Parts: sequence; structure tokens; C-alpha cells
Amino acid sequence: MHLTHIEHIGIAVRNLDEAIPFWEERLGLKCYAVEEVKDQKVRTAFFKIGQSKIELLESTDPEGPIGKFVEKKGEGIHHMAFAGTGLQGNLDELAGKGVQLIDKAPRKGAEGLNIAFLHPKATGGVLLELCEDPGK
Amino acid sequence: MHLTHIEHIGIAVRNLDEAIPFWEERLGLKCYAVEEVKDQKVRTAFFKIGQSKIELLESTDPEGPIGKFVEKKGEGIHHMAFAGTGLQGNLDELAGKGVQLIDKAPRKGAEGLNIAFLHPKATGGVLLELCEDPGK
Repeated sequence: MHLTHIEHIGIAVRNLDEAIPFWEERLGLKCYAVEEVKDQKVRTAFFKIGQSKIELLESTDPEGPIGKFVEKKGEGIHHMAFAGTGLQGNLDELAGKGVQLIDKAPRKGAEGLNIAFLHPKATGGVLLELCEDPGK
Repeated sequence: MHLTHIEHIGIAVRNLDEAIPFWEERLGLKCYAVEEVKDQKVRTAFFKIGQSKIELLESTDPEGPIGKFVEKKGEGIHHMAFAGTGLQGNLDELAGKGVQLIDKAPRKGAEGLNIAFLHPKATGGVLLELCEDPGK
């Protein structure tokens, strides 16, 4: 498996519009996109920092994954995403080594990326996403 | 404030030696250093990915910050660290804007970096560390 960089860190927030100013005005990061990902029941805001992004996630449905996370654990870091190539091959390799996956095949995520999540049980408590840019 | 990249992601683990193989053998990241940070009551393992690092943290004392975190929340992502320059000035600027800080002045962290933590109350639940490389 070849992973190149941290693609993004996903942070669960209660209210996107209230959260954005801290990252922009206090930390000096620019919010360059706000996007709704209906499949994930979230509205997201993206900030670029070096090779990586910060992705704030507001739930659009209390029964969605971010809604449940915030209800149970409060706001905070929700997941970490690594960028790499050969995503399907990587998933097959992990599954072959007995790593528990949430997604056995890639699906579409925000910004047109192909994504798949590993199960936190396999990673030591980290919800880990692997991403591939199909345009590269 | 000028932040350049994600310096590292800190992940709390119960046992460093048991955690390292997942990151090395499953994800293909190389563990290039294991270091004890006595001040923080942790033993750390570092992996490089692009501009960033993954820092696994094992507590050496149940009363230390990572020991308490694991006891309360289990293993998982503990904090996120951004690299930048002018750390003391950045802290002064944040304090001046009413942002609650854990460290009002930089202290020494792992790998010889100057570091300071912001309070999660100020960041929307994220334990955020700012780092500066004094050699740059």
C-alpha cells in the first residue's frame, strides 16, 4: 500500500456557520468550499492547510453518522483520511490480512474522491478513511 | 497567523508495541522513532506521511494526560497539531482575541519542537496544538 499524505481531518460540529469563523478568523485558514453530501447526511466546510484539508461536518439529520456522533461524544475530531492510489487493491490487501473494513469497495465522497472507511476496531479506535482522486 | 501544514496527529494507544505493527505492516508507514517525553508522561512512536506525522502515544503513568484520556474515552485520536512560525506571537494574538489557551507560552515537545495547546473549549472540542521548529 502506498499512502502519500493526510488528505483531511474530519471534525464534527453542531453548527457549521458558527464554527467556520474560528478556523478562518482565529487560525487564518480560508474556507474555500461548503458542500452538502446527501449520502452522508452532512453539510461540510473545507479549509486548506499544506497538503491537507480540514473538513468541518454538520449533520443534516439526527440519525446520520455525524448526528449520532455529536449526540454521543460531542463535537470534536471524527475521522482521519489518508490519500493514496490503488484504493480497491489496498482494500483487497487489507481484507486479505484480516483488517475489518466498513467499505469493501470504494464509494463517492466529498469533492469527487473515491473513499472507503476502515473499521475503528481494526485501527485502535481511529475511524480511518482512505481516499483516491480518480482524476489523478 | 500563518500555519503551514498539519505537523502531526496524536493518537492515544494502550500499548505502543502492540499498536505499531498496524501502522507499519497494514498501512505501510515506517516507524522512524520511538521517544519518551517524560514531561508528558508518554512514550511516543512516529510515522511520516507526506508533510505530516502520525504520533502514537502510550501513557507511562495512569495519572498522565494520555492515561486519563484512554481511561475515560478509550483509544483514538487525541489531538491535532499545526505547524507554523512565530508561535509566541500567535499565542498572544489568540489570547488577545479571547481564545482560551492551555499554554500561554511555548514549551518543549517531542522532537525538539516548541509547542503550545489551545483549550478544546475554544476550538469546538478539538485539542489543538501549535508547533514551531526552532531550527527553522
